[in-house]
Amino acid sequence: MRNLNERIAEALTRIRQERPLIHHITNYVVMNDTANLTLHLGALPVMAHAPEEVMEMTSKASALVLNIGTLTIPRVEAMVKAGKRASELGIPIVLDPVGAGATKLRTESALRLLRELRVSIIRGNSGEIGALLGLEAEVKGVESVKGVKDPAEASRQAARLWKTVVAITGKRDFVSDGGRVLGVDNGHPLLTTITGSGCMATTAIAAFAAVEEDYLVAAAGGLACFGLAAELAARKASGPASFKVHLFDELYNLTPELLAEGAKIVEIT
Amino acid sequence: MRNLNERIAEALTRIRQERPLIHHITNYVVMNDTANLTLHLGALPVMAHAPEEVMEMTSKASALVLNIGTLTIPRVEAMVKAGKRASELGIPIVLDPVGAGATKLRTESALRLLRELRVSIIRGNSGEIGALLGLEAEVKGVESVKGVKDPAEASRQAARLWKTVVAITGKRDFVSDGGRVLGVDNGHPLLTTITGSGCMATTAIAAFAAVEEDYLVAAAGGLACFGLAAELAARKASGPASFKVHLFDELYNLTPELLAEGAKIVEIT
Amino acid sequence: MRNLNERIAEALTRIRQERPLIHHITNYVVMNDTANLTLHLGALPVMAHAPEEVMEMTSKASALVLNIGTLTIPRVEAMVKAGKRASELGIPIVLDPVGAGATKLRTESALRLLRELRVSIIRGNSGEIGALLGLEAEVKGVESVKGVKDPAEASRQAARLWKTVVAITGKRDFVSDGGRVLGVDNGHPLLTTITGSGCMATTAIAAFAAVEEDYLVAAAGGLACFGLAAELAARKASGPASFKVHLFDELYNLTPELLAEGAKIVEIT
Repeated sequence: MRNLNERIAEALTRIRQERPLIHHITNYVVMNDTANLTLHLGALPVMAHAPEEVMEMTSKASALVLNIGTLTIPRVEAMVKAGKRASELGIPIVLDPVGAGATKLRTESALRLLRELRVSIIRGNSGEIGALLGLEAEVKGVESVKGVKDPAEASRQAARLWKTVVAITGKRDFVSDGGRVLGVDNGHPLLTTITGSGCMATTAIAAFAAVEEDYLVAAAGGLACFGLAAELAARKASGPASFKVHLFDELYNLTPELLAEGAKIVEIT
Repeated sequence: MRNLNERIAEALTRIRQERPLIHHITNYVVMNDTANLTLHLGALPVMAHAPEEVMEMTSKASALVLNIGTLTIPRVEAMVKAGKRASELGIPIVLDPVGAGATKLRTESALRLLRELRVSIIRGNSGEIGALLGLEAEVKGVESVKGVKDPAEASRQAARLWKTVVAITGKRDFVSDGGRVLGVDNGHPLLTTITGSGCMATTAIAAFAAVEEDYLVAAAGGLACFGLAAELAARKASGPASFKVHLFDELYNLTPELLAEGAKIVEIT
Repeated sequence: MRNLNERIAEALTRIRQERPLIHHITNYVVMNDTANLTLHLGALPVMAHAPEEVMEMTSKASALVLNIGTLTIPRVEAMVKAGKRASELGIPIVLDPVGAGATKLRTESALRLLRELRVSIIRGNSGEIGALLGLEAEVKGVESVKGVKDPAEASRQAARLWKTVVAITGKRDFVSDGGRVLGVDNGHPLLTTITGSGCMATTAIAAFAAVEEDYLVAAAGGLACFGLAAELAARKASGPASFKVHLFDELYNLTPELLAEGAKIVEIT
């Protein structure tokens, strides 16, 4: 995957040069972390959810993150408003269906956003994506406790069904645009010990999608970049909190050269 | 207290084996910290407050945390809804009356939750519990500036009055079920230099209550576990922020054996 | 500026002795960070925005922070309520117009607060203050991408126009009460790599304003104190997240003596 690695390394370079604005409508648990992660990657974060300003904010952004953790119905309405503007303007929308499958509200809200908006990329764990596909899957809170049997195939099916790029993250991440399926093997088990690691991965994907038009490549790039920083951080960590500090430092210090060398992306089909 | 120490060590083992879901309806200041703390202890956190989903989320949880920091009236309504479902299903409710005594809204909201729900454990500082008891006490923001004179006796009185386990935390923590009173001597002064240490203690109690049916033991166990991690963290800290990083790392690394050895629980009466 | 340095050192001493309550109505991204920073400086934080309690909470506070990040219209109404009570009682109000210039809602909300309340100090970046002055300035999300040409003069003009102390922060910070203009040269580029550093500076200013009646001195003191801690932290940091940990530790460990020595305040006019 030499060419792909170089391409995502170029995307990282462009993020740092262009400093794209990433508009987040996201949950309260991870707002601080994902704003910081956006900055550390080189992009600019903004968190804004007032119905009176979301369209104006989105129209100036280079990517829109819609994350349904700690959702409420007015918040979903704001997402629809911002998302419609993004769809009109061709701004990529990255959806994180946090806790889909755990409650009816979350499942239905995620499906509504997929139905009403031109979502570019959806990233979830195996239980969340499985629940949205109507497969036998189980989500406990926001954790996948029973995922789909074949995530590679599920990512492809979902991508065809929703006409979007689908990323199913786990020990190996699977990314598909409905045709190709890529696997991303970067990452570290310590990511499962901190809250919001999925949300952070989504933000990383959005930063890449802001500069890379092939959203399959953008999704793989964001995941490889985030996972590689986790690998480097794990070597220095003595627990989850020091791991998180190192993870953010490593993301900031990650060079395009290191990313090109360290990204572990495989072509599944 | 050899037997009690072994019992709480077993509870910690069970938390890590069973990974109980702890549903939080909590304040915005500590959401990230208490979600992380839940994970580090071995349990699974979920933060959800939409009126449309709180009952469904609670019904899948093993404990419900109601924390009135940054409260609003709709948020309290969601707490009542979730709490009624928890009461029906026998799921333990742990209440944190953040800032009770500081404003009428907070005092009255805490009393309403105590009145309408079957609260299993309430944890507050001496000023908060004193204010709820109608004693001469003073809370400045969320800080106890004038506590009750005899916290051991106050915890017992409150437990009888509200038919719940009461934990009054401070230099020594007092826990009572209306009959017995226990003292917990774990902890460190650096806990007073970080925001949300009370809220974190409440979350630790909830994780223990999810697996230990004697809520007096669960409350003492959560406090001993949290306080012991603080003691270990303080040795490595060079200020409040590095203390917090070490506190979380130590909680994650704390073994049941270490807890059995290090818990300082005394029987007051 | 020997006398000024001694005066702000005395203010720091008073913050730690008096432990003033700083009531924040602020954005969700920085709530945890600014609560912690308040504690580390020696003051007491409280975050409260329910319309039913904001007036009561403010009336017990020694300073009120109004920060319009992640604003909504009901949140601005709560700010007006709290701010009117603060104005009546002579409690200093410190306004942070986060993202003014980026959307109409933010610009108009900030101008409304300036118009309806007796704001004591406003702190923003060069783009935000420029946008509020109607000058040619540009804000991308919450970042100043095009500031005013002459920030020293702009701070003075703005202070006269709004009858308040104005702080424009950047590489050099400028603070004016409409007559005097001070420059503060403390700080470090790593501050631009973490989210909320502007909001944190505002909170530091509020802690100083709680004990120092000359708000020009309070603003310069808060900025010098925060910037000096950043300088000390940068020496130990290996990236933005470890920088933030050290920043908070250094603020906590900063003595009045160190502040008197290290503050770099210059009289511009």
